[in-house]
Amino acid sequence: MTILMENGDGADAVAKGGMDVEVSLGDLRKQLDDFAKARGWEQFHSPRNLLLALVGEVGELSEIFQWKGEVPRGLPDWNVSEKEHLGEELSDVLLYLVRLSHMCGVDLGRAALSKIEKNAIKYPVGRDYSRAAAAASSKWSK
Amino acid sequence: MTILMENGDGADAVAKGGMDVEVSLGDLRKQLDDFAKARGWEQFHSPRNLLLALVGEVGELSEIFQWKGEVPRGLPDWNVSEKEHLGEELSDVLLYLVRLSHMCGVDLGRAALSKIEKNAIKYPVGRDYSRAAAAASSKWSK
Amino acid sequence: MTILMENGDGADAVAKGGMDVEVSLGDLRKQLDDFAKARGWEQFHSPRNLLLALVGEVGELSEIFQWKGEVPRGLPDWNVSEKEHLGEELSDVLLYLVRLSHMCGVDLGRAALSKIEKNAIKYPVGRDYSRAAAAASSKWSK
Amino acid sequence: MTILMENGDGADAVAKGGMDVEVSLGDLRKQLDDFAKARGWEQFHSPRNLLLALVGEVGELSEIFQWKGEVPRGLPDWNVSEKEHLGEELSDVLLYLVRLSHMCGVDLGRAALSKIEKNAIKYPVGRDYSRAAAAASSKWSK
Repeated sequence: MTILMENGDGADAVAKGGMDVEVSLGDLRKQLDDFAKARGWEQFHSPRNLLLALVGEVGELSEIFQWKGEVPRGLPDWNVSEKEHLGEELSDVLLYLVRLSHMCGVDLGRAALSKIEKNAIKYPVGRDYSRAAAAASSKWSK
Repeated sequence: MTILMENGDGADAVAKGGMDVEVSLGDLRKQLDDFAKARGWEQFHSPRNLLLALVGEVGELSEIFQWKGEVPRGLPDWNVSEKEHLGEELSDVLLYLVRLSHMCGVDLGRAALSKIEKNAIKYPVGRDYSRAAAAASSKWSK
Repeated sequence: MTILMENGDGADAVAKGGMDVEVSLGDLRKQLDDFAKARGWEQFHSPRNLLLALVGEVGELSEIFQWKGEVPRGLPDWNVSEKEHLGEELSDVLLYLVRLSHMCGVDLGRAALSKIEKNAIKYPVGRDYSRAAAAASSKWSK
Repeated sequence: MTILMENGDGADAVAKGGMDVEVSLGDLRKQLDDFAKARGWEQFHSPRNLLLALVGEVGELSEIFQWKGEVPRGLPDWNVSEKEHLGEELSDVLLYLVRLSHMCGVDLGRAALSKIEKNAIKYPVGRDYSRAAAAASSKWSK
């Protein structure tokens, strides 16, 4: 199974339907729960253990980008093994995030929809965000 | 909309169907893309900008847990505002992860299913993982 | 050269003078600058490249602790290779932090002394910090 | 006390002696230990609490850079408040790193010198590192 698209540009690929396996957060949560139960891993899955495992995977994700300088969207110059490696690290972060949410009793899907609604109110359409983006990088403006 | 469950225990909640809004990664990707387009934010969403924003949110997630010592699954002792705050930070990490994957041209849902399959082969059922878990915390054993 | 102390307890070890090689941040900054110049690595050491490398090392540090649950101070139960591995990962974070500060034109030593002074005013001696610590884990109370 | 240099370029500033307050890791360790003892904070300073606090500060450091795209060395275009904010976040990471090392019984200064020696052997002068840097961003090549 490939995780790559013929066309490296994300936005175009969506228009082309290149990215539409429907994978739900609930499916992933259930698969990870079965996976852990089958291997006796629940004993290791305390919230802070999973959080540190997530931080570890974010570190591996960062290592992929660390010496590259800025890279264009769709990563047109990356080779197949680099993109597969990237897909695996992005997945590792997602899977620990889904598992952490589950072990904390948080419904991640509902929380995400709720956060998008909240942000739609916080950041109304039509405002000039060029300065806001700069400000967002300063703690004091929060 | 509440993102919390009556029963703090994740595993039980699943059995009770307490957690089953079906939210797909494709839905989130599309919503975030529309959100960014409507606000002219695409100019800010380069892969490394999004990666650093993700790291920032992982930091906010860690701050929630930093002074608490170990916490039990389901976070039975956390108050409502703490759990809502946690849900928001977990969501922020997810939303940047979905957006980063999209801007990198990676189908996160497919990549995640692929990684679970790969791990099912790498970690067969029936092996004793008590030592493996300890080993996993050492770089040398990888 | 060993980086470990006979006595795992940090506080005692200080009393025993077990920890007093004087290594200054300026020495480290200079050594890292010479190291990079000698190998032509300055071309790779942009601020954001170094920041992502730092995040990568924080991830490796987190991996050491991820499956262990809470661990006591001084890590009395860790074996020599685990403690050496820990010392290396702590060092990797420090070295990238020193290099990042240098490449940003920030005097890390002065900044650190300045931050301690600022915190001494922000957190006066004699206040009850048991509630403050809990509050500190909530974004809203900042 | 200012933490900034007249000249934003780190390398030049060293030549000009613009950066040479001698701050040792031992001094910082001792100051932080006194600070914590005076406020009864030792109870909160378990290794994993400090590690998560460190991750939180790395997140705040990343937020400073997140929407900026690539930035040149010395940050010539940053204003004073941005540079002071940066100095504070770099310091927060350093201070938690020093405290974490102490609470783990690791002599961070010795460990750092030891790691530089080890890297000098691992990365000999005279090799071509242009390919090595690219390779370093791939887990498989480690």
